[in-house]
Formats: sequence, structure tokens, C-alpha cells
Amino acid sequence: MSVTRPKGFVAAAGSAAIKGSGESDVTIVATDDARPVSAAGVFTKNKAAAAPVEISRRHLEETGGYAAGVILTSGNANAATGESGRFAARRLCGLVGDELGVSKSEVLICQTGLIGVRFPIETAERHVAAITRTRALGEEADLAAATAIMTTDTVVKTASAEGDGFIVGSIAKGAAMLAPDMATMLALVTTDANCSPQRSGAVLKEAVAGSFNEMTVDGCTSTNDTVILLASGKAERRDEVGEDELFDAVSAVCHSLALQMANDAEGATKVLNVTVTGASSNEEALIAARKVASSLLVKCSANGEDPYWGRVLSELGSAGVDFKIDRVSISYGGVAVCRGGEGVEHDRSKVGAHMAGRVIEIACDIGIGNGEGVVVGTDLGYGYIDENRTTS
Amino acid sequence: MSVTRPKGFVAAAGSAAIKGSGESDVTIVATDDARPVSAAGVFTKNKAAAAPVEISRRHLEETGGYAAGVILTSGNANAATGESGRFAARRLCGLVGDELGVSKSEVLICQTGLIGVRFPIETAERHVAAITRTRALGEEADLAAATAIMTTDTVVKTASAEGDGFIVGSIAKGAAMLAPDMATMLALVTTDANCSPQRSGAVLKEAVAGSFNEMTVDGCTSTNDTVILLASGKAERRDEVGEDELFDAVSAVCHSLALQMANDAEGATKVLNVTVTGASSNEEALIAARKVASSLLVKCSANGEDPYWGRVLSELGSAGVDFKIDRVSISYGGVAVCRGGEGVEHDRSKVGAHMAGRVIEIACDIGIGNGEGVVVGTDLGYGYIDENRTTS
Repeated sequence: MSVTRPKGFVAAAGSAAIKGSGESDVTIVATDDARPVSAAGVFTKNKAAAAPVEISRRHLEETGGYAAGVILTSGNANAATGESGRFAARRLCGLVGDELGVSKSEVLICQTGLIGVRFPIETAERHVAAITRTRALGEEADLAAATAIMTTDTVVKTASAEGDGFIVGSIAKGAAMLAPDMATMLALVTTDANCSPQRSGAVLKEAVAGSFNEMTVDGCTSTNDTVILLASGKAERRDEVGEDELFDAVSAVCHSLALQMANDAEGATKVLNVTVTGASSNEEALIAARKVASSLLVKCSANGEDPYWGRVLSELGSAGVDFKIDRVSISYGGVAVCRGGEGVEHDRSKVGAHMAGRVIEIACDIGIGNGEGVVVGTDLGYGYIDENRTTS
Repeated sequence: MSVTRPKGFVAAAGSAAIKGSGESDVTIVATDDARPVSAAGVFTKNKAAAAPVEISRRHLEETGGYAAGVILTSGNANAATGESGRFAARRLCGLVGDELGVSKSEVLICQTGLIGVRFPIETAERHVAAITRTRALGEEADLAAATAIMTTDTVVKTASAEGDGFIVGSIAKGAAMLAPDMATMLALVTTDANCSPQRSGAVLKEAVAGSFNEMTVDGCTSTNDTVILLASGKAERRDEVGEDELFDAVSAVCHSLALQMANDAEGATKVLNVTVTGASSNEEALIAARKVASSLLVKCSANGEDPYWGRVLSELGSAGVDFKIDRVSISYGGVAVCRGGEGVEHDRSKVGAHMAGRVIEIACDIGIGNGEGVVVGTDLGYGYIDENRTTS
């Protein structure tokens, strides 16, 4: 179970004919008593933010951080759709709100799919009330909810974690346009913990920074990225949970979802864990790790299972961080291939065996300070191109 | 003719057994009387700069901007090679200097090839003097010089331009690791114009900024990027040429070389001309154009001939520049596909025909100010991956 595992939530899914294929394309997650609960969101920094991002932001402002439900749709991003897009997003919230008996501003919205295509609200609106009415608890509802938000994802993505007397659950989608500052990704995280909108917001922001924002597939920041946290406060434990303990559980869920996305990245055959240590700060370590993990040349080498550390060194040198080439060490799968900025003799068969695996560990020590960071990336192969060269 | 077309230069090329294949891998360009002339260089900003970059920078400092010759080698970048790499680069300069009868600091060096492989100086040094002695004028010498610096290039790259009473010639190599801040590229520009090292330096810097730095293939900044300008002062026109007129000729040559590189980009099937107008400054226009031209998703769409402007809009929105989605227009090949941040009806067959061509014009108007800029990029297809997945 995922989003309905924490107490107080129900989920529904179905087709509103957005995808055209007849597959399910609408998910609704609501509180079981249709009462608004603590809600927080982290949204894309893209200034071409889609209508659902605008509307969800506005609704959270209007309510001061409360929502009774979230509608998530797939197949059309409702991005670059102007006033008609905002109308459609508001209308979808209104339809769910009517069914729950709350105002439309107490409903949030996430959408994913193609950019720049008018959202077919006239068709979609006919289905939303009926889908909302099927909301239920349990495995089946959760799986349906996770499935209906998929676009190019090949597997459903769910995660849950237990805190001390509370539970966190989640569903997510995302397989490309994955970059720092999230991804073309939507994630809905639910918890039965008792916590204020302020605490939810702070925890979510920090958890996203340390998970989705430390993953890169193609360096593209989407128009629709959204992570929402709803906290029902219906766990047996009644006191407000501490920020740290909530963070631990929410962060665990976000980390798991981020890894699931990297593993399901469009056309990827490898996951790259790029660790940078010895940077002058943690921030610089992350910048350097991101530069390596997002390098087309490093990604191509990973695809070809070629431990060409010279490209890793070159990316570190051009990352704009404090750097002295003669202090740099690089290893693949724990085997040092470069020390003091030069190649060193090493066990090539051991490195070759590591490169042949699905997960490639690239560890770089910059040798200057104590900053460290990890960024998860993927290789670049034919599959990514096949997936993205045409939208038809 | 190219580097020896301006008066006062001779060129030579041959094999120093660096490549292993026996192909020519050393080019030497020198003044015809072996006297030092005005020299300037623009080098990679990569902090993991290769030994030849370090040595050339140092030589230019030592001489105050004079050189009698340049040695360019291919097949081994002599990067990430520590003290032995610096020794090798100095040694190569010394061998050419001995042959020309000048000090080693009056010889500059450019190298390109694999990073992190010890440079085979013991073998190479046996061939350099003999190659230097074959230096000559004319077509054949120029072609040999341009050929010996190629790595993954499929065609030789040369360009020349005429100023008022002076000539500029050039050879270059570069086919990937092409990014703002130059590329894995080497270019040697010669001119018979009379101009001081200071003027040469200023002109070269500006010409590089407007040509090589406005081209992107894969966003990678190499360890070895170098552009050198030698000015013999042997044109019939004896007075020092003005900065503007020298800039025009040097810039024309650099532009031509940059386009040749984009056209020969590893595995590319399309050249993308991304123009941004209406930005709040020229600088922001270039930032936005670079973001679009280097987007993996935009590049994949170009490969698939898919005019998916939503991705262009998304990149503009995440470029970090002043941006209001409802002011943005985008066109492909002059046909508007997006206005006011929304799709507009357009002639799809006309756009389709444009996308099928080799050069794709993507014009974006941000609608905020008067800033404009152009960045040249390429598509992303199987070819790039084939070229880069393994070095063997």
C-alpha cells in the first residue's frame, strides 16, 4: 500500500479520456472524511510553469496550507496553454471539490504529459465526479492511483516509511526531463502524522532538496514538477511530530522514489552514483557531482562500460568549483584509477566487472576541503533518443 | 591555402608515432625566417587544463606575446599527466625551437586526443626535428597541417579571409566536447597583418567570444581548448592594422571554423541555429539560446524532425533569465508555432519540410527587451553515442 497506508486517506483512479488510448489518466487522493488537512507543496522553478502549478500554488496561498484532496492527471501537461489552461485546472479542482463538499481552493492539482497542447476539459469534466466517487482504501486503490499518473514510466512508483507512531506513503511518476530542481515528476506524499502546514512545508522542502534535486537524467527542468505532502493527523499518536522525525520518514520516501525514477529513466541501462568528497563545501561538492553526472561524455562512457576517468576529471575541472588537478583522486567501484590528477596502475578486470553492472559508483575526491555530496544519474544510450525523438 | 596563405608562414606535418596507426599526428607552423612574431592565445577555462595549455600560457608570459612557431599534436591530449606531461610539452617546444634556432619559450604547443594517458615523449621526440625541417609554403603543406591535427573530425577545417592589405588564414580541429567556452578544439590563426601582441590578444579574445563560444554540441568544456593567433607583419601594408578591421577578418575566420565544427559534430545530422530576441540584455539572450541549443530534449526532437516547441519554451523558462510566458513567441524556419506562450495554428507541412532539412532555425522572441543572441547547436542521435561510448 502507498498513499492510503497512512490513516485518513482514500484514492481513486479512472479514465477521463485525456490520453486517447482509453488508459486510466486521472488519480484522485482525498481525506477519508473529506475534511481539509495540512498541505504543502514544492513546485518547479521553471518560469514557464504550467497552469496546474499556478493554480496549486494559489490554492495553498488562499487556504494557508490546507487541502481535502488532490487531482493528478496524465497525458497532457496543460502547460503553455494560457488562460484556457488555467480555466481547465480550476475547473478540475472545482469538480473534485463539489464531490467532496469543499471549495475548489481546498483541492490541489498536478498534471503531466505533452506541453503546449490545449487541455480537453470539455471531455475530461464529464468523468471527474464519477471517478471521485469511487475513492476507496487499500492495495487496489493505491495501485490504480499510482498507475493512472504514469506517462513514459515503465513501472509504478510507490514508497512508504514508518515513523514513531505515524506512517508516510507516496506515489510518483517520472522518467525523463529529470534534473536538479526536480524533474518531469509528480509525487504525492501522504502521512497520518499530526503536523502544521508550516512544519509540513519546511520538511517537504528539505526532503526534496536532498532527494529529487540530487538526481539528474537529462538536465531538463520541467514546467510541471510538483511534490505535495498531505498530513491527516489521524495516526494513533496525537501530539505533533517533531520536524526531524517527520523529515527522516518523508526523506526516506523521497529518496526511494528518486532512485526508482533513476532506475526507470527513459532508455537508461545504468544508474550512476557520483560521489564527490574533499570539496571546499557541501554545496561545491554537489555542483561538481552534478556536473559529472550530467556530462554527456561521462554518460556515453557509462553506456559503453568504458572507465574513461579523464572525462570525469575534465568535468570536475570545468564545474566552477575550487580545484587543483594534482589533488584529485577518482575511483570506479572502489578501485582507484586516478591519484594526484594522474592515472595509476589498477586492476582493469575488476573495474571492467564493475562497469558491466547496472549501478556504477564513481567516487571523486577533490582533496581540498571536507565538502561532500552525491548525485544520482544515468547513462545515455539509444533508448533515450528513441523515447524522445518524436512525440507521436 | 590556409595557414601559409598570409605572408611569412610555413607549415609541416608528419607522424611522430603518437596515434599508433601511423597516421600523421604532428603539425608545425612557423615563421618563414624563424623570427618570433606577435602571438596571442585564448585557452580553456577548465581548471584541469592540460600540460600544453599550461606551457603555452607560460611561454606567452615569458616572451610578452611572441612566438616563432607552434607545434600541434593529435592522438594524446597530454592532459591529467602531471609532471611528466609538462616535461613532454616543454620538450616538444624545445625540439622545434632548436630546429628554428629560437628558445623553447618562443614555441607554443597545442595537443588533442585522449585524456589521462601518459604522452609517449620518448618515441615522439625522435621525429620532431625531421618533421620541422620539411616546413614549406603552399597548398600541400597547408592540407597536411590541417590533416595531422584531426582526431574524430571527418573533414579538414580551414578558413581564410582578406582584410584591407592583409590576409588571415587558419586551420582547426574539433568535433565534440564542444561547448560554450570553446570546445575540444584547437585552432591556429595566422595573419600577415602588422599588429602588436596586445592588439592580437584583444582581437582574438573578442573573436573567440563571438564564434567558438557561441556553439554547443555537448556542453562539455575540454582540458585542451586553445586558439592561437600569430601575426607576421609581412603584408605589403606596413602600418599597424586597426583593431576593428583585424577583428572583422579574424572573426570571419573563427565563425567559419565554428560552423565547420558544428557541421562535423560527432554523429550529428542537424545544425540548430537558435536565435533569441527580446531578452532583457544580449547576455541574457545568449544564456537563453544556449539553454535551448544544449537541451537534450530539444536535440532529440531535432533528430526526430519533431517541431515540439513546448520543450523550447520549457528551456527558456528554466534558463534563469527574465521571462513572462505570455510574451513568448517561437518559430521554426520562420513559421510561428507559439505566440503569447500558447500554440497557434500554423502550416504544418511547411514546418515539416523545414525540419527535414539539415539546418533548423529556431527563433524565440522573449518579448521583454531588446537583447538578442544566436547559438549554434546540433541534434543528438545514435551517432554521438556510437562515437563516444568507448574510446577503444
